[in-house]
Amino acid sequence: MIVLHHCSDARSFRPLWTLEEMGLPYALRMLPFPPRAAAPDYLALNPLGTIPLLEDGEVRMTESAAICHYLVSRHGPSSLAVAPEEPGYAAFLNGLHFGEATLTFPQTLVLRYRRLEPPERRLPQVAEDYERWFLSRLRKGLGRLEGGFYAAGRFTAADISIGYALLLATKLGMAAQFTPEAAAYWERLSRRPGYQRARDAQQAALVAQGVPPTDLKAG
Amino acid sequence: MIVLHHCSDARSFRPLWTLEEMGLPYALRMLPFPPRAAAPDYLALNPLGTIPLLEDGEVRMTESAAICHYLVSRHGPSSLAVAPEEPGYAAFLNGLHFGEATLTFPQTLVLRYRRLEPPERRLPQVAEDYERWFLSRLRKGLGRLEGGFYAAGRFTAADISIGYALLLATKLGMAAQFTPEAAAYWERLSRRPGYQRARDAQQAALVAQGVPPTDLKAG
Repeated sequence: MIVLHHCSDARSFRPLWTLEEMGLPYALRMLPFPPRAAAPDYLALNPLGTIPLLEDGEVRMTESAAICHYLVSRHGPSSLAVAPEEPGYAAFLNGLHFGEATLTFPQTLVLRYRRLEPPERRLPQVAEDYERWFLSRLRKGLGRLEGGFYAAGRFTAADISIGYALLLATKLGMAAQFTPEAAAYWERLSRRPGYQRARDAQQAALVAQGVPPTDLKAG
Repeated sequence: MIVLHHCSDARSFRPLWTLEEMGLPYALRMLPFPPRAAAPDYLALNPLGTIPLLEDGEVRMTESAAICHYLVSRHGPSSLAVAPEEPGYAAFLNGLHFGEATLTFPQTLVLRYRRLEPPERRLPQVAEDYERWFLSRLRKGLGRLEGGFYAAGRFTAADISIGYALLLATKLGMAAQFTPEAAAYWERLSRRPGYQRARDAQQAALVAQGVPPTDLKAG
């Protein structure tokens, strides 16, 4: 049985979304955010203290975009994977990494120095530097979006990687600054039944396990 | 012909190292750092302004760890790739992402707010926060290293992804804080003939193209 350790709306939403798109069976273990402080027992499972952790038999993975790639290629066949022989393979790999390294990490700085740090350690300069950084990379990286765009020519795990970055940006209040192309892409992704099932699964697990949702608006 | 756009010691060193390990033919185009400011013509090729850019026929890629994965799986067969059927596949994917998202991005904050920003915008707090962050993730993420450790059981592109993070940390003056296991791992990686050939290729290209090396010690 696949077990996914998850905080609501955290990067672990990527594998949750992938699991729901694929219709795979899994168990969802909800944790309060941040787990390092709020659930110290978790450190015995994942010494990094980061979210996600995926357990699949002997396998342990901690990088959310890598987990999506693993699920679609190891638990497929799935149209969410792109094989090395396919023309979209380079764009698939690039999109998987771009969604996290280029589009998500900068947002964690906005969150940290605008909201999560205690007031005396907040740094508006850093939050502004990386809000601008994120919006610029988003504009230029998705610059050639058109009506039917997906990162690798069809909906794949690369869109889940990028899509999570857009979900986080909406939570952080940056959606109003999306370009029309990015807004249309996000609209298309978030209307997918697989995305909606993942939202529902997250909400049901929060309630069933009595875990408070991550408050991305706090501070 | 594969063309790699590269600044010395930047993330683009990952694909350069991979190309040399594989013995593939390529052209290396050196750029001064940061290319956005120092080589504005580059923006026509890569609107993001980031390094690297890989050109391979119609393919354009900008994420360094994704390029390594692409090269070993599309231009193989290579022992640097791990196939989905192999037992190390999950660790391979996780290591490729871990090297960049978890171990490299935090170092760019150390570099930016300690050295690259003009003095009035430097922020020792951020540099210290992310130096600690990097060293903690390195310690815990490589916590189970032993004598013969590689990320996925043998030397693969995942070690190149993580190895570049260790190279950058040595340039930023953090090598003295490596755990003995991380230091031994880095020693093993940096003694590889493929790594040394990549260092030599970088140096030769800097001289031949008259480009100044990236000054990671500046400021």
